[in-house]
Amino acid sequence: MNVPAIKALLFDTFGTVVNWRDSVIDDFRSFGRRVGIDVNWEAFVDEWKAAYRPGMDAVRSGKWPWTRVDRIYRMKLDDIIPKYGLDRLGEAERAHLNRVWHRLRPWPDAVAGLDRLKRSYVIAPLSNSDLDCLVNMAKHAALRWDVIFCAEVFRHYKPDPEVYLQAIALLGLAPSEVMMVAAHNYDLRAARTHGMATAFVPRPTEYGPGQTTDLEAEEDWDIVADDFEALASRLGC
Amino acid sequence: MNVPAIKALLFDTFGTVVNWRDSVIDDFRSFGRRVGIDVNWEAFVDEWKAAYRPGMDAVRSGKWPWTRVDRIYRMKLDDIIPKYGLDRLGEAERAHLNRVWHRLRPWPDAVAGLDRLKRSYVIAPLSNSDLDCLVNMAKHAALRWDVIFCAEVFRHYKPDPEVYLQAIALLGLAPSEVMMVAAHNYDLRAARTHGMATAFVPRPTEYGPGQTTDLEAEEDWDIVADDFEALASRLGC
Repeated sequence: MNVPAIKALLFDTFGTVVNWRDSVIDDFRSFGRRVGIDVNWEAFVDEWKAAYRPGMDAVRSGKWPWTRVDRIYRMKLDDIIPKYGLDRLGEAERAHLNRVWHRLRPWPDAVAGLDRLKRSYVIAPLSNSDLDCLVNMAKHAALRWDVIFCAEVFRHYKPDPEVYLQAIALLGLAPSEVMMVAAHNYDLRAARTHGMATAFVPRPTEYGPGQTTDLEAEEDWDIVADDFEALASRLGC
Repeated sequence: MNVPAIKALLFDTFGTVVNWRDSVIDDFRSFGRRVGIDVNWEAFVDEWKAAYRPGMDAVRSGKWPWTRVDRIYRMKLDDIIPKYGLDRLGEAERAHLNRVWHRLRPWPDAVAGLDRLKRSYVIAPLSNSDLDCLVNMAKHAALRWDVIFCAEVFRHYKPDPEVYLQAIALLGLAPSEVMMVAAHNYDLRAARTHGMATAFVPRPTEYGPGQTTDLEAEEDWDIVADDFEALASRLGC
């Protein structure tokens, strides 16, 4: 791979940059202690998060009109709350829980790695999350993006081609000058289809200790790096 | 004005954040010395810049299809080059000159003021410039935006309502929670129409020593501040 040709790095965010599962579980457990609720938060969060992909697929297939991730999660939250005996949670508390995605913490290597990469490259998320969530998360987690790209702006969810192609066009770059960085093979597969460079950074505990998917590179991605610090080193930063 | 209600500040960029005229003149004069060309760069730049508003108005009125600012400037550059006897400039040199908008320097107060404001607010440009120009300019000038909004993303130029309304919607905020900051009364007038808060920061030499427009506030804007440091102080940062 011709590393010097790369000018911008686009990052999948949930799972790749931030450790969403541990963050959400910790946040909810702390909320539960504050209001005197004790449930199996791991199970709650896993069941809740499972709404994400089907919701986006419903939008991608045209079954649903454009629907923000915030709305997808809120519908599912209201749906599972009775099952866990939490009916007493009011609107303010539900809104607080649903905004947990704005309060996620990065993987330990993420901030230092991004700061190194930012010195030589344009860095930006290319995420299915909503824009306000990414803005607030960046402030919360000290992710110093140069610009923020997301599904909501393009009205398409990854892996729809529009997401990748419109970000590349807005950067004024050729696809080969833009590298997609992700912990998910499906995302890199789509990026490569459009001529982008690819970097796989596995996050083997993103889905918890029993994770079975995306444990390793499923294609010969241009770079495979253990974390963002290793990625920065590979890119000469 | 209820200052604590403000959550995000959107900044006009050319003229308000960066001192485009002096930057472009200095850049071109230095280029001229390098390649052995001496022309009246003030006159050249003023004539070139005059293409900006008519070009955007041609897009806004539907006379032209969507056209990037980069293209508007390039057409005008090629147009005036013969008049100044610069026909010998080749493609690489013209492309270099046309990208001068990526290399602008901020007003002396801008970076320190933005850094103060960023601690308490989401800060972002809301500019008619192209996205790649704003990204590169931010890196060049150390403008630490939280997110970048621009005409190109919305396919509308200010003061079209879509630019203001879509940025507000993407931030997930009410219009009254978003303050438009500009050195141009027309921009604040449009922002106020949509319920945004307004801050006027005059830049009385933006167009050079003989500037006759936007020397003072033409309405009772929520804040009038001499520069971004004064704006930060007024907002309690």
